[in-house]
Amino acid sequence: MIKAGIVGATGYAGLELVRILSGHPEAELSVLSSVSFEGKRLSDVYPALLHVRDEELSSSDGIEDSCDVVFASLPHGLSQPIAARCAAKGRLFIDLGADFRLESESEYEKWYNGSFDDKELHKSAVYGLCELSRKKIKGAGIIANPGCYPTSAALGLWPALSLGLCGAEGIIIDAKSGVTGAGRALTQNTHYPELNEGFSPYKAGAHRHTPEIEQTLSKMAGTDVKVTFVPHLLPVNRGILSTMYLQKGGRALSDIHAAYRDFYKGELFVRVLENGRYADLKNVRMSNYCDISLHEDPHTGTLIVVSAIDNMVKGAAGQAVQNMNIALGFDEAAGLQMIPPAF
Amino acid sequence: MIKAGIVGATGYAGLELVRILSGHPEAELSVLSSVSFEGKRLSDVYPALLHVRDEELSSSDGIEDSCDVVFASLPHGLSQPIAARCAAKGRLFIDLGADFRLESESEYEKWYNGSFDDKELHKSAVYGLCELSRKKIKGAGIIANPGCYPTSAALGLWPALSLGLCGAEGIIIDAKSGVTGAGRALTQNTHYPELNEGFSPYKAGAHRHTPEIEQTLSKMAGTDVKVTFVPHLLPVNRGILSTMYLQKGGRALSDIHAAYRDFYKGELFVRVLENGRYADLKNVRMSNYCDISLHEDPHTGTLIVVSAIDNMVKGAAGQAVQNMNIALGFDEAAGLQMIPPAF
Amino acid sequence: MIKAGIVGATGYAGLELVRILSGHPEAELSVLSSVSFEGKRLSDVYPALLHVRDEELSSSDGIEDSCDVVFASLPHGLSQPIAARCAAKGRLFIDLGADFRLESESEYEKWYNGSFDDKELHKSAVYGLCELSRKKIKGAGIIANPGCYPTSAALGLWPALSLGLCGAEGIIIDAKSGVTGAGRALTQNTHYPELNEGFSPYKAGAHRHTPEIEQTLSKMAGTDVKVTFVPHLLPVNRGILSTMYLQKGGRALSDIHAAYRDFYKGELFVRVLENGRYADLKNVRMSNYCDISLHEDPHTGTLIVVSAIDNMVKGAAGQAVQNMNIALGFDEAAGLQMIPPAF
Amino acid sequence: MIKAGIVGATGYAGLELVRILSGHPEAELSVLSSVSFEGKRLSDVYPALLHVRDEELSSSDGIEDSCDVVFASLPHGLSQPIAARCAAKGRLFIDLGADFRLESESEYEKWYNGSFDDKELHKSAVYGLCELSRKKIKGAGIIANPGCYPTSAALGLWPALSLGLCGAEGIIIDAKSGVTGAGRALTQNTHYPELNEGFSPYKAGAHRHTPEIEQTLSKMAGTDVKVTFVPHLLPVNRGILSTMYLQKGGRALSDIHAAYRDFYKGELFVRVLENGRYADLKNVRMSNYCDISLHEDPHTGTLIVVSAIDNMVKGAAGQAVQNMNIALGFDEAAGLQMIPPAF
Repeated sequence: MIKAGIVGATGYAGLELVRILSGHPEAELSVLSSVSFEGKRLSDVYPALLHVRDEELSSSDGIEDSCDVVFASLPHGLSQPIAARCAAKGRLFIDLGADFRLESESEYEKWYNGSFDDKELHKSAVYGLCELSRKKIKGAGIIANPGCYPTSAALGLWPALSLGLCGAEGIIIDAKSGVTGAGRALTQNTHYPELNEGFSPYKAGAHRHTPEIEQTLSKMAGTDVKVTFVPHLLPVNRGILSTMYLQKGGRALSDIHAAYRDFYKGELFVRVLENGRYADLKNVRMSNYCDISLHEDPHTGTLIVVSAIDNMVKGAAGQAVQNMNIALGFDEAAGLQMIPPAF
Repeated sequence: MIKAGIVGATGYAGLELVRILSGHPEAELSVLSSVSFEGKRLSDVYPALLHVRDEELSSSDGIEDSCDVVFASLPHGLSQPIAARCAAKGRLFIDLGADFRLESESEYEKWYNGSFDDKELHKSAVYGLCELSRKKIKGAGIIANPGCYPTSAALGLWPALSLGLCGAEGIIIDAKSGVTGAGRALTQNTHYPELNEGFSPYKAGAHRHTPEIEQTLSKMAGTDVKVTFVPHLLPVNRGILSTMYLQKGGRALSDIHAAYRDFYKGELFVRVLENGRYADLKNVRMSNYCDISLHEDPHTGTLIVVSAIDNMVKGAAGQAVQNMNIALGFDEAAGLQMIPPAF
Repeated sequence: MIKAGIVGATGYAGLELVRILSGHPEAELSVLSSVSFEGKRLSDVYPALLHVRDEELSSSDGIEDSCDVVFASLPHGLSQPIAARCAAKGRLFIDLGADFRLESESEYEKWYNGSFDDKELHKSAVYGLCELSRKKIKGAGIIANPGCYPTSAALGLWPALSLGLCGAEGIIIDAKSGVTGAGRALTQNTHYPELNEGFSPYKAGAHRHTPEIEQTLSKMAGTDVKVTFVPHLLPVNRGILSTMYLQKGGRALSDIHAAYRDFYKGELFVRVLENGRYADLKNVRMSNYCDISLHEDPHTGTLIVVSAIDNMVKGAAGQAVQNMNIALGFDEAAGLQMIPPAF
Repeated sequence: MIKAGIVGATGYAGLELVRILSGHPEAELSVLSSVSFEGKRLSDVYPALLHVRDEELSSSDGIEDSCDVVFASLPHGLSQPIAARCAAKGRLFIDLGADFRLESESEYEKWYNGSFDDKELHKSAVYGLCELSRKKIKGAGIIANPGCYPTSAALGLWPALSLGLCGAEGIIIDAKSGVTGAGRALTQNTHYPELNEGFSPYKAGAHRHTPEIEQTLSKMAGTDVKVTFVPHLLPVNRGILSTMYLQKGGRALSDIHAAYRDFYKGELFVRVLENGRYADLKNVRMSNYCDISLHEDPHTGTLIVVSAIDNMVKGAAGQAVQNMNIALGFDEAAGLQMIPPAF
């Protein structure tokens, strides 16, 4: 068993990591760290974990000494020093935050108002969209776990863009996220009576995940891709469903569908649905699956790609564990065989 | 007081009509008709209306004799004979169903698999998007109350298209509806445990409201408009929020915003939000308002128009009453001054 | 039109007052006061009220000069000075908070950790459970609007206790409230992802509404009544449903039911349901109704009384307006004829 | 690996069994049977299980030949013949339905309108409340898996009754269940728009689980126990929370709490919370835990016991698997170590 540590264990993504790693056959949780709740038991903060995780939350000091792999789920800017310490000790570092996702420092400055402390360190980081970058992930030292929206968008569009099934121009991504994506911090917007029975977009055309989405899609397409990205907040706890609009070109939907199925054949966590079915949050909740469905509007020549993930699992902690599995040579599905509950 | 009758009073739109008309200063409910529940009291079917509407549900036979205005909320195909009877008696007929919405019989055949029983009657019908067609509605005999999605889309896009603020090509309408839009009939999809915490599109690129939307937008734009329309089912009871994507062209967002404000100045039920605000279902629920917010993605040149209505009110019963008010010369807001509850 | 002022207009009960009074035929809103948002427009705080209430929120200074009736919806302890100012000017003061509900100062000290600033003022206050105290409310200067749980409990048990239909010993009140009851302030418990799909009791046997409930029930029974009261937090926005257990004694359920019906005959806002029906939050939401249903467990001799109200309406703002109507001699239902929407 | 079969695999409890057994280390799912969907793939009925369970649903004919253990989740009356076939072949039969729960045939007749086909078979059945009856379950041939409400009530009251901590008279059980408890069949009550934001009791004092609860509590108390049981339907998918009221007698709450902790020491799936904490559905969802919290109303001398389970897991499929584990000598927690997700 390797030893795993989590920095930021009491945030939602951190807790989901705890939950998944608690059932992992190859890793044991060795350090759970939290600034806000240091000295408290994790099960005091989250009584759901009573008898499961009653250990005290600690500081992250020296986590790179006691752990073989360190996960961080922190506000942007705070991962870089921990990554540096892990790199110095040769520990695998998996960052669920945004610090290592963007290759361009100027984009990072623009969207996150930060800078790269150590440019070499950033160059060494691998963007861990598992299905896309398995080879690079094997043996990586720093893995930037993708954002939730970018995971949903990239898995949905990858075959279309990399196989050239559709035009790469004018892509619209209309995404809807569950509330856990907004985190544990209290806001008026996520106060129960003001979100319940409500629905609204936010940061339309101005969300930080836009450059990350474009960075990945551009690599997939082999050309510069720009997207219009509008996220919405859904009154559900978990999940991201992205409805994506592309110019279909002349290809038949059935051909595109067949190409998608072929492309993802053998992928454990990507399910291309039968024609006529729709991806739905309820079918991926609590699991590491990404469901993809394909549709068309024949009279406008539009391809409609719908992808659904659990934002906390495939969009955060699940993919992080998948990255660990790949990097350390474990069975890629180890600890990740959760079946979505359907209800 | 005029006498009003409702055919299909126990469907969701029918009941909402009952609720609104029960507080109307100029109309009294005279006949409540239901095929499924004839002979029962309305308050037996909906105990919420106990002591409010305890009268027995009747047949619709002779409703054109006893009522000055007849509303019908029926599956498509069933309104035509009632409309004919009302027309023969000179009664105002307001159809909340689809029978009179499409001008083209071939489109009606294609999407609804029906035909126009009496082509002259259809020609006489007025499409009752209140803000657009006030003049025609005054004095109309048959009013086709617009569909919920079309109302939301048309009010959101009208200034952009009629003033030529944006291109009319390649419009994407990504719409999300509350569950009441699916009606009272039981389906597995709307069974509580299977919808709760779920979210999914349906009939992508293939929904019956597409031709109705295009018919209205084409008139507004003065040119043939095609849209890609994808509806989704939200786990909330009420409301439609449409996120609409247009090519912005060179105009500044602030100019477009000013034009929208000017365009809708004086409209009681359309609220163009301040820049930076987002239309949200929670702010229009239980009211006749349509909220519109405008956003842009500058790096792709996309204008994003968001409109929100209560599908049962402005998208159905509220607009029907507004149509009655216009047609019969009442204060247009009579009976419709419900304030959205905010929580 | 009389002039009404609201102190604490941006809390949930305050806003609900705004909403109800905006449609009142005899009163106009003259002052909307808020400490937290003074100088902002109410519609900035609650965009649902855009175009309805765009006036600026003011201070409450001098509200007793400019208004005929002043409503206060404030944390306990803060109403007393405003009440004193209103009393000095002869203005009607209706307190939605707890300052004037308890007759016993020692109980007030025990449960609210406060004292009565002016004992004479407290003696002059009338406990405004409308149906119970109509006569006293007419002409009252200070009205203590009952708490939400006490309203639900007292209306449900009044006939049983005052007619001696049941024993007054060992009454259990298991109550469930929507989240608006917890107010607008942010807490981890009411953060959407942590309340959604959850359910739990709180303050079991230790809630501040217990002495208020017992004070009212004791008057109704003509003897000292003690109750076990356990509230729960429901993942819905509005409503309180109380399930209450009493020792039935020898009387038949049908007799008790008949007595309840007779007792509440003519009451506009209390609906005693037919035998076999169950009170349900959905049937009273957004209305001033209290629905009551009666059931029994014959094998244990238990009478089960279920009462349902909207905590924001009959449990707060609606009852406050009803109190104003009674006190000032308006039609008791003025402004309160909202029909519950059923969905 | 033993072979397991499920009769009624497409009901909610059946599907939950599929989900749990799919991850069981000692059992493999060999037969999935369904009358309604025979010939279809399970993943066609529940797309959540795509790639997980794509096998065809079969008939239950001969299931006793091919399986070592047979689970049945069927409407009452239908399990008896399958149990007889399993018994004849010496297969373990675990019934999630009601056919074998009641020892008294007359009670079964009264509440379920059925009879015992084979009285000897009924005598051989063991009531499988795991913590209570471990010894009998080991080696049992027919196990009656307890109902969801009875599990919640019995685990919550067992220490109090068996240790004589409280009086056994006048017990009130006010229980609240998630909607999955009502099953997959469509009803108006569970149609999304009519349940959402609603809340109501049902079958007050008249629910079929009453005799089952009393049968178990009477054994625990060593005396005849009668309870008043009122279930409610919560607008959440999963979980049962029971609030139970007992006469506390002279014992201090802290003593009762200590006795509960001691009583359940070493139990894997029962968590007695610290004083001051409240059992909450959110902390047991998707897990096999039963959380219990203890409270008191000192001024009425009432002990308040709150227990929370996931109705689909500890209240159905989880306990069924726990029963299999005990009966067949597996690790009792095998396949059941799901951690509740907290959000």
